[in-house]
This record gives sequence, C-alpha cells and structure tokens, in this order.
Amino acid sequence: MATIFSKIIKGEIPCYKIAEDDHYLAFLDINPLVKGHTLVVPKQETDYLFDLEDDLLAGLTVFAKKVALAIEKTIPCQRIGVAVLGLEVPHAHIHLVPLQTEADISFSRPKLKLEKEEMDTIAANIRQHL
Amino acid sequence: MATIFSKIIKGEIPCYKIAEDDHYLAFLDINPLVKGHTLVVPKQETDYLFDLEDDLLAGLTVFAKKVALAIEKTIPCQRIGVAVLGLEVPHAHIHLVPLQTEADISFSRPKLKLEKEEMDTIAANIRQHL
Repeated sequence: MATIFSKIIKGEIPCYKIAEDDHYLAFLDINPLVKGHTLVVPKQETDYLFDLEDDLLAGLTVFAKKVALAIEKTIPCQRIGVAVLGLEVPHAHIHLVPLQTEADISFSRPKLKLEKEEMDTIAANIRQHL
Repeated sequence: MATIFSKIIKGEIPCYKIAEDDHYLAFLDINPLVKGHTLVVPKQETDYLFDLEDDLLAGLTVFAKKVALAIEKTIPCQRIGVAVLGLEVPHAHIHLVPLQTEADISFSRPKLKLEKEEMDTIAANIRQHL
C-alpha cells in the first residue's frame, strides 16, 4: 500500500512544497515542532533510511543540505537540526528542524498547528532562498 | 582551539573506536542514550554539518550507513535513528541511536553510564559486524 508520502509525491495529497527534483521531495511538516520544520524524502518508496542504495542516500543528504540552507535564511535559528526516527510512517524521511536550542528537536514536545495561510507563506519564503 | 573530537581523531583522547577511514571516524558516545549509541564525525574540523562540502557530506552519510548496519546486527533494536543537533561541540557529528521506540532518541532523557569493560565489549561486538 502506498505510504502517505508516496501519495504526496504523486500529488494525490497536497503539500506545502519546498523543493523537488527527479529523486527527492521536500515539504513542510504539517505538525511542526517549530516554524519551518521540513521533511525531505526520496521518491523511491523505501521504509528504512539505511536500506537506500549508497548513491540515493548520498544524494538525499546533499539535497537536504540545499533545503536546510534555504530554511536557515528564512527562519530565525542557530542552525538546522536533523533527525531520522522512522518508526511511524514506513517511508524514509529526514526531519530538518530550525533550532534555537537543542530542545527544539524533542519530538515529545507539543506540535504547532499553523493556519494554511501561514504555512503557504513559510513555504514561499523558503523557496525564495533556494 | 581543537575540539574534543579533533583530539579523539588525533588519538590525544582515547575513544571506543567503531570504524575509521581517511575521512571519517565512528566511536561510542561516552554518555549514551542507549547501549550502542555511536557518534560519526568527519576528520576535517567543521562546526556545522551543512558547511561540509557536498562530497564530504555525502561520504559521511554512506560511512554512517555502514556503521549503522553493524550496530543493528549487534544491539537489539527496531532500527537505527539519526540525529544531528550540533549546538554543543563545535565539530559536526551524527548521533546513531539504536531505537526500540522513538522516545529512545530523546536527548532530554538521562544518559547511561556504562563501565569501561562493557563499552569495550559493545565496541568490539559492533566492529565484528563491519
């Protein structure tokens, strides 16, 4: 069965898109820890990050770097933190989280709920820095 | 001033080494969240992960994958989680954390304190699976 991320990749479910190329997609997390929290996924549906072939894994990281540098030009932060947990959605995904403190990347924190308009604005602002 | 990780890379401070090549080093975190918690660092002293050149960043991830696959053959877990926080030691480092639940990678949890003998055994067991 297609994962929710595969449905997003196919356009069957909308997303706040940040960046896309032939192999990867980046979009805002709809339950963000902080504003600008972004997910980066390979288009190839692979459950576990470390099951990705070396080339695809390496490319994913370089793609994530470009996205991270655009996020940090947009969202006030010390730097962009990275997390891959992967026990919930069975489609490998990297969390990019703008950090003011290390606690900002604690997944036990309550998530933000932002209005569509604000999410659109955040995504558009990040895209401008790509 | 050399970071603590540069001193470990130079051998000035001992570590529980897991893997090493020309560009990267992996060693057990001495304040682990769970048994097998490992740090992967580039030998080039760079504070921020996303300041690494694309090639070095890509290689770091592929090196971390090899280490992660060895850890998961050694430590009972669902999979290996990944985190990069980076606001404390100014030398880019990837945390590889064996996960039974996503909460295992919460950095606010109390750290384990293991005896040297146990750390040596964990490191030796992981190295056997490389």
